[in-house]
Amino acid sequence: MSDRQQGVVDLLVTGGLVVTMDDEWTLIEDGAVAVHNGAIEAVGSSSDLGRAYQPAETIDATGHTVMPGLLNCHTHAPMTLFRGLADDLPLETWLHQHIWPAEAWAVKPEMVYWGTLLAAAEMIRGGTTLFSDMYFFEDDIGRAAKHAGIRAVLGEALVDLPSPNSKTPSEGLAYTEGLLKRWAGDPLVRVSVQPHAPYSASAELLARSKELADRYGAIYLTHAAETAVEVSESRARNGRTPAAYLDDLGVLDRNTVLAHGVHLTDEDIALLAEKGTGIVHCPQSNLKLASGAARLPELLAAGVGMGLGTDGVASNNDLDMWGEISSAAMLHKLISGDPTAADARTVVWLATRGGAEVMGLGDELGSLEAGKRADMLLIDLDQPHLVPLCDIYSHLAYAVNKADVATVIIEGRVVMRDRRLLTVDEQELFARAREMAVEIGPRFGRR
Amino acid sequence: MSDRQQGVVDLLVTGGLVVTMDDEWTLIEDGAVAVHNGAIEAVGSSSDLGRAYQPAETIDATGHTVMPGLLNCHTHAPMTLFRGLADDLPLETWLHQHIWPAEAWAVKPEMVYWGTLLAAAEMIRGGTTLFSDMYFFEDDIGRAAKHAGIRAVLGEALVDLPSPNSKTPSEGLAYTEGLLKRWAGDPLVRVSVQPHAPYSASAELLARSKELADRYGAIYLTHAAETAVEVSESRARNGRTPAAYLDDLGVLDRNTVLAHGVHLTDEDIALLAEKGTGIVHCPQSNLKLASGAARLPELLAAGVGMGLGTDGVASNNDLDMWGEISSAAMLHKLISGDPTAADARTVVWLATRGGAEVMGLGDELGSLEAGKRADMLLIDLDQPHLVPLCDIYSHLAYAVNKADVATVIIEGRVVMRDRRLLTVDEQELFARAREMAVEIGPRFGRR
Repeated sequence: MSDRQQGVVDLLVTGGLVVTMDDEWTLIEDGAVAVHNGAIEAVGSSSDLGRAYQPAETIDATGHTVMPGLLNCHTHAPMTLFRGLADDLPLETWLHQHIWPAEAWAVKPEMVYWGTLLAAAEMIRGGTTLFSDMYFFEDDIGRAAKHAGIRAVLGEALVDLPSPNSKTPSEGLAYTEGLLKRWAGDPLVRVSVQPHAPYSASAELLARSKELADRYGAIYLTHAAETAVEVSESRARNGRTPAAYLDDLGVLDRNTVLAHGVHLTDEDIALLAEKGTGIVHCPQSNLKLASGAARLPELLAAGVGMGLGTDGVASNNDLDMWGEISSAAMLHKLISGDPTAADARTVVWLATRGGAEVMGLGDELGSLEAGKRADMLLIDLDQPHLVPLCDIYSHLAYAVNKADVATVIIEGRVVMRDRRLLTVDEQELFARAREMAVEIGPRFGRR
Repeated sequence: MSDRQQGVVDLLVTGGLVVTMDDEWTLIEDGAVAVHNGAIEAVGSSSDLGRAYQPAETIDATGHTVMPGLLNCHTHAPMTLFRGLADDLPLETWLHQHIWPAEAWAVKPEMVYWGTLLAAAEMIRGGTTLFSDMYFFEDDIGRAAKHAGIRAVLGEALVDLPSPNSKTPSEGLAYTEGLLKRWAGDPLVRVSVQPHAPYSASAELLARSKELADRYGAIYLTHAAETAVEVSESRARNGRTPAAYLDDLGVLDRNTVLAHGVHLTDEDIALLAEKGTGIVHCPQSNLKLASGAARLPELLAAGVGMGLGTDGVASNNDLDMWGEISSAAMLHKLISGDPTAADARTVVWLATRGGAEVMGLGDELGSLEAGKRADMLLIDLDQPHLVPLCDIYSHLAYAVNKADVATVIIEGRVVMRDRRLLTVDEQELFARAREMAVEIGPRFGRR
């Protein structure tokens, strides 16, 4: 075959076990993915794609599985700098004596930038290719994401009280509109509108935020029903659950996502299903803060869209999506008393397709299919804890570890190759992060 | 100082953050551990030990934390070969249609040897330096442990029905006595007596096993109170809980350990505390099989000795003690509704000191103190998910990953150095394990 008959592509990943995560759960042994201009050109057997394409670069995925990147649908990236600051404390002590004072003192654009770069390095190393963020100074979060080469969905936290970045809610909304304009068309960075929570954002702010989101066709994400206390306070104050209250404000629809959704009533679940509103399930954060366990089986049975998130490092203490996957798989077996609940395929789906759909990116991300953006992982199967291989979904749900991610490709660009991060100078990053943390730990840490 | 004034030692690990796990929770920044003849000679500052000792070999632990090895107090090592065979199934289906038929067909000395070597490679890579095993052909498990250089406590599973290794209970007991004699005095391998469970071993077998254990001063370990069904069947058959039944047989004392202990009554817990009987908590296996959550806070409050275990790979699906540590820390916060439950120090203690004490090895293992055996880990802190370092116990409980274990020393011998396993040819091992699994998966796997 002459070169002219072959399609020229940027990259061919070949020889791996391809887990497409398409609708048919297609697995391709000795499979390949062709990538061009940041998109997936084709997925098929190594021999077919080897004949069809002439790649500028080839990555040999022998001994690896090739799968879509993981989507971390809810985090507060710069909180990496508060890692281990104050664990194992009552929620009120944790927030009022440690986290909030630390944030009031420390949160500035430079801290946000380096904290996010640290988060991005950790996430890429663990196979996360997109994170959805709620924090302050989200422009700086976008800058850090671009530097690292990871996808981000920015969401400036909108609150009634003054924030580190905005004196008033209107300032926060104006800043968010600025984000929406400045980042429009960026291949990696999207912007969403993220009022903090029904208890920290007024009805007016919640509604104005939705109006802004709709004007730009953006995703709207807010914390809701994270704790039982929040729900009972909502009932006392608003006469209804957080979900019902948000519905009264007219903000629940297919472009709205609730983070946590731990304490939902049957009526709430029916409401979310009817409105098409999604949930980001954050099992480890909910466990660590003793918030509870979201009703995953009921939510899925009702058809509510769901993704997974790590939440911030202060309540996790890492940004490891594999931990969320296995925690989700195990937790819901315990809660339901049913060992068939949250099976391996389901939890892997949540971390890939589910997350993409919830974030409004189902057409672009979440599976390895021609036409989607080229975000994928190579996972090294040649390790004792992954031998033998009987069921790849079981491996992904229960045995794969974040350090098994060998190579990460985002928007067609190799950002990590054989565990070497190509986009970030980690030694400089660690030095800067440690410098900043030295100022924070002794002031606001537990001891 | 002349050489003659210095103590000659085999090994000096120097420049690390030493987490001693001693009674005072001593941490030594820029600390060192001197090792001679397989034992810890001294623990102190790098400068003091550098002056005092002339080592044959020095390991630079700069940028690492140095801590005791982890003790996996309950597993079935050869079941690595059943990894992912049949997940997310009801317990009865899982056991009767998959695991038991696979065991009946596959369990032979060669399978046991290679399955254990695979387990040992995985465990060493993850920082486990001792495993307590219950399976069949335990001599072969001891051989594999010796090959890999990992400590093992062998326990031939004693059952009423014929086992792959013994036609009768008496044969099983005789085999166990043979183990006790053959392995006496081995520096790495101990032998215990492990009747399978009160429902699978007769009263006579349970009592004869204890008699044998006592004759040799050996640990006695049995499964107990793993599921609610087991407890209700015990009440129906024996008129009492599994723990009370075992007490009636006279087998509960300081040398007895119960694996799981999920469904214990208040009276059971008081009984175990009074008798000095320990529990091996296996949180992930109990979650995955939907068995329940052991009453960790109540057990600890009552003073019951506790260690952690992974259980077998068929219900986990790995042998990662870090997963058990963080699962224990998170699970008991959820169950108790108290975010201060199972704090970081407690769960790290369970995996080190707690496990050593439960296994009757508290004087020899579990902490870095002069006179104890030299089992220790170097953990690489120079990674994004471990930056910044605020509280080392929080890191160990919530953020350290098994792949962060860089170097493992067991009985003074470096068995893994900078992630390179020195005792096992992994490529040969993987090839053998895959060969065997190819025979098992299609016959007994889920699909």
